[in-house]
Amino acid sequence: MNNLSLKLQAGQLLARGVCRHLLTHNFTSLEEFTPERGTRVDVMAIGPKGEIWVIECKSGREDFRSDHKWRGYLEWCDRFFWAVDDMFPLELLPEDTGLIIADSYGAEVVRMGPEAKLAGARRKKITLKFARDVALLHHRMRDPLI
Amino acid sequence: MNNLSLKLQAGQLLARGVCRHLLTHNFTSLEEFTPERGTRVDVMAIGPKGEIWVIECKSGREDFRSDHKWRGYLEWCDRFFWAVDDMFPLELLPEDTGLIIADSYGAEVVRMGPEAKLAGARRKKITLKFARDVALLHHRMRDPLI
Repeated sequence: MNNLSLKLQAGQLLARGVCRHLLTHNFTSLEEFTPERGTRVDVMAIGPKGEIWVIECKSGREDFRSDHKWRGYLEWCDRFFWAVDDMFPLELLPEDTGLIIADSYGAEVVRMGPEAKLAGARRKKITLKFARDVALLHHRMRDPLI
Repeated sequence: MNNLSLKLQAGQLLARGVCRHLLTHNFTSLEEFTPERGTRVDVMAIGPKGEIWVIECKSGREDFRSDHKWRGYLEWCDRFFWAVDDMFPLELLPEDTGLIIADSYGAEVVRMGPEAKLAGARRKKITLKFARDVALLHHRMRDPLI
């Protein structure tokens, strides 16, 4: 296993814990969602009233520092969160973002991300893309011949 | 196998062919979708512009005649279709509905259902429920422990 696959694996394990926890908030989620071409967020979650949250999972200092794109993700969600494990140096994270402490098995929202509500047209577009993307993924799982 | 399971199986096989074909129209689909409590449609599909189609799969004359609920499904979609196999007595079907001829492996839209566009609020509600329902199904498949 090389460094890249180790890093991906750590982030994906955090994402698993995050998605499990989000369900307890009644948010359904999708990993590695692409709101538009060239942009991929680690976890996108949709709440019961259509609230859209984005969660970026960071396995460590280096993983966080190499991410120069995250501010761009703010325009795709009502609230933005980092998800990190309990060894992560929290002082690196901007204070005006949400914080989730996670491991592979679960997570906890420690600080809510401030709310910046999406405009209606953008919310509609993201919700539709989320619906169609996850339906296609689910279709591929139930009918591998497509 | 009793009659009920035979009937369900036939309908579900048609649904598989229908869902495969809908993808060629760029519609993503979900089987056995519940737009509201007490209402379940065989296939709900969402198009690239958010168009919502409902498809009821009928395995035969008896299956069609015992369905007293289908007119209620019209209020959950922009277009409504029947999906039947090529042995089905087509004269039973109302002319002002769409028609898809299907088998287990594929299907063909023979007659488009007339368009009756949903109001914006209802479309939003259905799209959101579809997104959340299929995300939860997909989550259960990728993480069976939830």
